[in-house]
Amino acid sequence: MAIAVYPGTFDPITCGHMDIIERAVPLVDKLIVGVYENLAKRPLFSLEERVRLVEEAVKDLPNVEVKAFKGLTVDFIHQVGGKIMIRGLRANSDFEREFEMALMTRKLAPDIEPLCLMTSSQYQFLSSTLIKEVAELGGCLEGMVPDHVAAALREKFSTSTKLATGKGKR
Amino acid sequence: MAIAVYPGTFDPITCGHMDIIERAVPLVDKLIVGVYENLAKRPLFSLEERVRLVEEAVKDLPNVEVKAFKGLTVDFIHQVGGKIMIRGLRANSDFEREFEMALMTRKLAPDIEPLCLMTSSQYQFLSSTLIKEVAELGGCLEGMVPDHVAAALREKFSTSTKLATGKGKR
Amino acid sequence: MAIAVYPGTFDPITCGHMDIIERAVPLVDKLIVGVYENLAKRPLFSLEERVRLVEEAVKDLPNVEVKAFKGLTVDFIHQVGGKIMIRGLRANSDFEREFEMALMTRKLAPDIEPLCLMTSSQYQFLSSTLIKEVAELGGCLEGMVPDHVAAALREKFSTSTKLATGKGKR
Amino acid sequence: MAIAVYPGTFDPITCGHMDIIERAVPLVDKLIVGVYENLAKRPLFSLEERVRLVEEAVKDLPNVEVKAFKGLTVDFIHQVGGKIMIRGLRANSDFEREFEMALMTRKLAPDIEPLCLMTSSQYQFLSSTLIKEVAELGGCLEGMVPDHVAAALREKFSTSTKLATGKGKR
Amino acid sequence: MAIAVYPGTFDPITCGHMDIIERAVPLVDKLIVGVYENLAKRPLFSLEERVRLVEEAVKDLPNVEVKAFKGLTVDFIHQVGGKIMIRGLRANSDFEREFEMALMTRKLAPDIEPLCLMTSSQYQFLSSTLIKEVAELGGCLEGMVPDHVAAALREKFSTSTKLATGKGKR
Amino acid sequence: MAIAVYPGTFDPITCGHMDIIERAVPLVDKLIVGVYENLAKRPLFSLEERVRLVEEAVKDLPNVEVKAFKGLTVDFIHQVGGKIMIRGLRANSDFEREFEMALMTRKLAPDIEPLCLMTSSQYQFLSSTLIKEVAELGGCLEGMVPDHVAAALREKFSTSTKLATGKGKR
Repeated sequence: MAIAVYPGTFDPITCGHMDIIERAVPLVDKLIVGVYENLAKRPLFSLEERVRLVEEAVKDLPNVEVKAFKGLTVDFIHQVGGKIMIRGLRANSDFEREFEMALMTRKLAPDIEPLCLMTSSQYQFLSSTLIKEVAELGGCLEGMVPDHVAAALREKFSTSTKLATGKGKR
Repeated sequence: MAIAVYPGTFDPITCGHMDIIERAVPLVDKLIVGVYENLAKRPLFSLEERVRLVEEAVKDLPNVEVKAFKGLTVDFIHQVGGKIMIRGLRANSDFEREFEMALMTRKLAPDIEPLCLMTSSQYQFLSSTLIKEVAELGGCLEGMVPDHVAAALREKFSTSTKLATGKGKR
Repeated sequence: MAIAVYPGTFDPITCGHMDIIERAVPLVDKLIVGVYENLAKRPLFSLEERVRLVEEAVKDLPNVEVKAFKGLTVDFIHQVGGKIMIRGLRANSDFEREFEMALMTRKLAPDIEPLCLMTSSQYQFLSSTLIKEVAELGGCLEGMVPDHVAAALREKFSTSTKLATGKGKR
Repeated sequence: MAIAVYPGTFDPITCGHMDIIERAVPLVDKLIVGVYENLAKRPLFSLEERVRLVEEAVKDLPNVEVKAFKGLTVDFIHQVGGKIMIRGLRANSDFEREFEMALMTRKLAPDIEPLCLMTSSQYQFLSSTLIKEVAELGGCLEGMVPDHVAAALREKFSTSTKLATGKGKR
Repeated sequence: MAIAVYPGTFDPITCGHMDIIERAVPLVDKLIVGVYENLAKRPLFSLEERVRLVEEAVKDLPNVEVKAFKGLTVDFIHQVGGKIMIRGLRANSDFEREFEMALMTRKLAPDIEPLCLMTSSQYQFLSSTLIKEVAELGGCLEGMVPDHVAAALREKFSTSTKLATGKGKR
Repeated sequence: MAIAVYPGTFDPITCGHMDIIERAVPLVDKLIVGVYENLAKRPLFSLEERVRLVEEAVKDLPNVEVKAFKGLTVDFIHQVGGKIMIRGLRANSDFEREFEMALMTRKLAPDIEPLCLMTSSQYQFLSSTLIKEVAELGGCLEGMVPDHVAAALREKFSTSTKLATGKGKR
């Protein structure tokens, strides 16, 4: 299956993302995890931090590369010679959005095939957004994110609390 | 059923919330309505105002207490000795979010049981967000919020119009 | 919470049903599992078999009773003095049906409160129908149904295969 | 808006159907309620009975006609000179099916426009199927079907009980 | 069908909107496209720009008028003497929101009937939001928006890039 | 991507199925279209007829094989040495069922990866069931099924009409 790209904001990478990555690896010759800048979503972690957290998470997996990108996802996939866009589906809210994006992708780049894997049932209800909310309030994230990501979240929120009491998140 | 907590932002409390509260009361020994600070959502009413509007709304109901809280909902429920988290389900959009939250709750605090009541059909399509939009534009809210809440909304929006013509809401 | 009824066809009882039962027990004084005759659905197991499989499954749980019933669910709940109808919600297809039934229940019997528990994530995608399809085709059901139910399914399908090769199920 | 057709099985007509009919009448020059034979669904009432129950229900409404039909809905609409197909939408399960049918309709007959009205909130959770289940079990249907339909349901089920104890409905 | 209003933000008008407008025109005596100010959504185009883009798009259609409005949609419909509110339904995410709005509309103004048309299948997955995201990143929008809208989007984003590199959109 | 299996009842094969097959072919070394016996669904076409209609449809595609199968889908995939199960997703009703099946598949056979392709927008609202209903009533199926399938449907229904006027389909 030549080269596949798994694009996302990864703010931060979760066990749900890892589940998709680990299952996609054996299907393709090379998997490129594309970390999207996505300033519009005001990510908690900088692009560089997000790339580093993903790199640490996939460092033992063969044939996986991590790259940051800006601009249109299909342009990025073309640049790296990809033919496949990997997406992880969860049972709930992101499905319609996935459809919009998949059909837009095929309109913009008919040579790229969006392929969806079903997120495993234990990760169905994990989202980066919910994880950040729980982390900000000091909740335990065991089994939801890799350990180094949990540490990064703790550090991020302890810093932001120290520096900016009364901050106006989001 | 010992102590149950009904958490929410209540910005402001609606007839849909009251429907859930009135039906939960006979099921439990004590019902604590937990008003969540929720700065991230930039509530229209201050935490103190929201607590006061809820207190006024439930003042004739037995065994109901109103408390403000910050931080993780499960931590608040533990603090007040609750065993049950009451949620109101509506037929539409909040269902998947409910699932995410219920499963996250059970992960963070397996001793707390999220219990859902089905919102009555006449309140299925009420949301605090829609109500605020209608109130801001001067629409009539009869039968959607308690009378004192309607009054508070009118006052809030007349003030904000006077003070801040050209305001940039949200 | 006085007496609660958990009604269903239980054709057969699954680990998803058991999850709901075990979590409902600590919330109520008595839980009655109501096994509905439901001839319209042409159940695989007879009413007596279904009751026996449920009884075996709940035999170590305190304050649980199993009863067969015919006719309207709300009439059955009234007969046994129940005030609460327990329902298990799964993230997928049964939600709208649940809403229809809950609102019909409240219309027919405003004194009975339908209470929903969220099925745990590992059982979200289990359904009696899917389990029967897999069992009929000889698939392994470990972790999906209690052991004695798995045995009953194996026996049921080995018999039906012997007696009725070329049968026209459903 | 010339002539509009409101097609359905109407087995039997409910207050939800009446809500749609009453609101469609002022919008069009003539409304034809098309009662579809629909043998595939094994209706409880015969085509003649269903037509009669609809006629009785709409007898005081101006510019409404009731007609039975077989075959393709779009062919029927063409025969009666209709330009519009009226559909009632409920918040739950029938939405996707509606989409399939609307797009198929437009494919088969681009000159016919499917127009949807939103069922009022008090009828959102009514379905002919659920009503028949409740009626069969002797439940009260007040406010769900017109009175003469409630009577017809009572008679139908008392007859079928007398004639066919142990019947295998559906 | 007297006068109908098709309200929206139209930021900017898409081929999906045009599909609804073109199909609504033959059904009504006059169609008023109501462009809602909607400052809360921080539209990309000013109210005047949006009105002009819609006017250009509908200039060859008979019996269509374009008007800007502020305040409650139902108040605007009353002002222009409308009896019908036209809405376009897409298979995905906006359905529940549509229901909320339709039922709120009927509560605020029982004399106005919300009528829904089903968006044609080729436009099911188009949204103004997605189109703006693609336009901002330089993607081709052929077949998704009228040509003059594509030009306006190109100009808007080239300007904003020139003036405000490093801007924090949204 | 080694060997992939695209299982289904194909009663009959539609343009939506063909869309998935044509897009899956370039992704894999070999694609096996598995036609499931599925007596439970009482297919219109016999297993042999369905296989023949699929074979005719794919005869010009490289690396595609058609095979009939009975029993568990995962057993069939193992028998043919497949590692991937191809599924086509449509925006509407089959999504939850897909999730149930995908998670059951992974439970029964963790070595098989279910991969979903998004059905193209023009085929989103096609289903074999709807097509059979339209065909039975004499509607035109151009662009919905391959020509030889349209012919087979016409013949099937003209025969069944001749033989069995007044038949009780389904």
